[in-house]
Amino acid sequence: MSDKIELTEAEAGGRRTRGEGRGAAARRASRTGGGAGPSLPFITRKIKEYEVLDEEGLQLIENNADLILEEIGIEFREDPEALELWRKAGADVRGERVHFPKGLCREILKTAPSSFTWHARNPERNVTIGGKATVFAPVYGPPFVRDLEGVRRYATIEDFRNFVKLAYLAPSVHSSGGTVCEPVDVPVNKRHLDMIYSHIKYSDKPFMGSVTAPERAEDTIAMAKLVFGDNFVENNCVTLNLINANSPMVFDETMVGALKVYARHNQACVISPFILSGAMSPVTVAGTLTQILAEVLAGAAFTQLIRPGAPVLFGTFAASISMQSGAPTFGSPEPSLVSYGAAQLARRLGLPFRTGGSLCGSKVPDAQAAHESANTINMTLLAGTNFVLHAAGWLEGGSSPPMKSS
Amino acid sequence: MSDKIELTEAEAGGRRTRGEGRGAAARRASRTGGGAGPSLPFITRKIKEYEVLDEEGLQLIENNADLILEEIGIEFREDPEALELWRKAGADVRGERVHFPKGLCREILKTAPSSFTWHARNPERNVTIGGKATVFAPVYGPPFVRDLEGVRRYATIEDFRNFVKLAYLAPSVHSSGGTVCEPVDVPVNKRHLDMIYSHIKYSDKPFMGSVTAPERAEDTIAMAKLVFGDNFVENNCVTLNLINANSPMVFDETMVGALKVYARHNQACVISPFILSGAMSPVTVAGTLTQILAEVLAGAAFTQLIRPGAPVLFGTFAASISMQSGAPTFGSPEPSLVSYGAAQLARRLGLPFRTGGSLCGSKVPDAQAAHESANTINMTLLAGTNFVLHAAGWLEGGSSPPMKSS
Repeated sequence: MSDKIELTEAEAGGRRTRGEGRGAAARRASRTGGGAGPSLPFITRKIKEYEVLDEEGLQLIENNADLILEEIGIEFREDPEALELWRKAGADVRGERVHFPKGLCREILKTAPSSFTWHARNPERNVTIGGKATVFAPVYGPPFVRDLEGVRRYATIEDFRNFVKLAYLAPSVHSSGGTVCEPVDVPVNKRHLDMIYSHIKYSDKPFMGSVTAPERAEDTIAMAKLVFGDNFVENNCVTLNLINANSPMVFDETMVGALKVYARHNQACVISPFILSGAMSPVTVAGTLTQILAEVLAGAAFTQLIRPGAPVLFGTFAASISMQSGAPTFGSPEPSLVSYGAAQLARRLGLPFRTGGSLCGSKVPDAQAAHESANTINMTLLAGTNFVLHAAGWLEGGSSPPMKSS
Repeated sequence: MSDKIELTEAEAGGRRTRGEGRGAAARRASRTGGGAGPSLPFITRKIKEYEVLDEEGLQLIENNADLILEEIGIEFREDPEALELWRKAGADVRGERVHFPKGLCREILKTAPSSFTWHARNPERNVTIGGKATVFAPVYGPPFVRDLEGVRRYATIEDFRNFVKLAYLAPSVHSSGGTVCEPVDVPVNKRHLDMIYSHIKYSDKPFMGSVTAPERAEDTIAMAKLVFGDNFVENNCVTLNLINANSPMVFDETMVGALKVYARHNQACVISPFILSGAMSPVTVAGTLTQILAEVLAGAAFTQLIRPGAPVLFGTFAASISMQSGAPTFGSPEPSLVSYGAAQLARRLGLPFRTGGSLCGSKVPDAQAAHESANTINMTLLAGTNFVLHAAGWLEGGSSPPMKSS
């Protein structure tokens, strides 16, 4: 498989040196990346956002999120520094659980930018995160791949490189992403180095950092500094970093540790409650939205305690589960309603918003996969999402990216 | 194929006589129509409509439609009565082309109801057309079927009966539709009789009338009267009837003739410009919307000249064509924008709205079919559509309904 799509760096990224003319040769050159600009600019939306909640509903959810933050609180696990920072900021810390006086998180979040530039090594590939901009990135996290022969197997670093190359060549994909697959043939303790190196070597689009341990976040920063320069990294966003809440109501030491490294270096954190409604949150749309808002408020505000002004996104990963089997489902109406509502809450907070993608539960790239993916990406665009992970498709609820649809 | 899904009337429509309990037997009974209520009620939307046009855009399109109606006019072909009615109503008739003074059509349309009941033989299956109601009907018009073995062939009356039975059994399909396929094994001059008879015999959901000639519309009314009663038909809507404009800017004698029959008997007309943007209208969304509004204003107002108060829908069938091959395309962004805008124009006119369905260009029920269908049905629902033809899917741009997806 890898042979078929193996490309030299020059072929993939070379500036237009041939095929300048019109006709088949030029089209072929454009298709194979020989053209001057294989990448389309990020989307600037000119259509309205679709909104499901009215003012009364929004205020009810916001008030209830404040109530949850104050009365139930959020755990910041095994991180004394985080607890000390919250104590100093005026929160009521009991054990590892932080209780937030009403309005505290919102007040702290006033220093977070509503829009910022995510820098690529090639400045022509810089993207805006926030406002009317929508940026597509490929799938994040699958341990498996389904190759061109349809065989499902564990992913390798060779697959990882190929997915980075594919993201680089795909005109509508604006970032090479992060963990485009989990290269299980490389030991965990140095896997992140190969992954970041692949993003730097095989693409000049913006990329995401490693979040699996604080020291791996530090390594990401160090590698970014090699290509962007020390001073540039400290003053600009060159990595977007996925910080999942351990819903319900917990940020663990890994996520808090990575968050602290990235925020300290002015890199963007995407605070994303990972929710399968009915399993990690109430089964209702309103209940899920309330929990999401509480978790994001705590996590996003924490970035500002580390470094006021550090870029941070309101993230949402919302799916539902089959109440019969417990299996996650995708492309169904409830998660769409959750995401539409979360987008509204994010806009009211003044934070860029991440959700959606082309999500499905199907095991193969079939009609079910296409229908569910279309349902999700339609919602993602109409919600006014700023950063879209998994935009190029996935299979099996995110267990594997299809070579074909990526 | 027909053997496999052949059902007796008792099996299909019988009231619950067995399988009352829980468990597998009850679920099987429910699936096979043995349950008490195989049909779900029509949808009452609780979510907002998605709107693409602001007040300025809407007014611009409305003003330009008025300009088109006045300066270019609309042809009513080979129908002296229609021309005479327009002359009396104050229009400027030149040959077969009717020019409408500004505001005339809107003024005439004030007698049209914004919402009405479409009666089924079984009153429990009555549906509301208009307001927050959304009603699903199956595909309309395909000359071919693709059977369960995947074989594509001309449709027969046996297929027609089976599609009516399927629509009757499908819980989310609220009408058995109209020309669910074109039964080409029955001579054209009496085909409509077999079609209407099938709708009456194999379903108790509301059905659509024949529009292929004025006398076939009369036959539809006569057959409806046999089951609903003379007086009931004259005072209630028991058929919805698809009146396509011959875009651009023409209503032909067949459509005008059928419209007159149905409006005279108080039956509902769905005035639907059939538009492939770039072929029958300007290629732009705004230009297409302007033409659609002009055509609907003329056709819908004409129903009120025939019988003030007769129910009429603002219909839109919008697709785009490939500018390379001329082939129709479905599930693409531009027709979605057209439909969103047309829905807004319909609400401002106070008329129920028809568009969309599960449309695709694919020849087989594959991933392309599913993706395009999902794009279309998402738009259809968010636009706030009242009556949805083709809701249960089609193939080949409407050339054949798939047995599987219907």
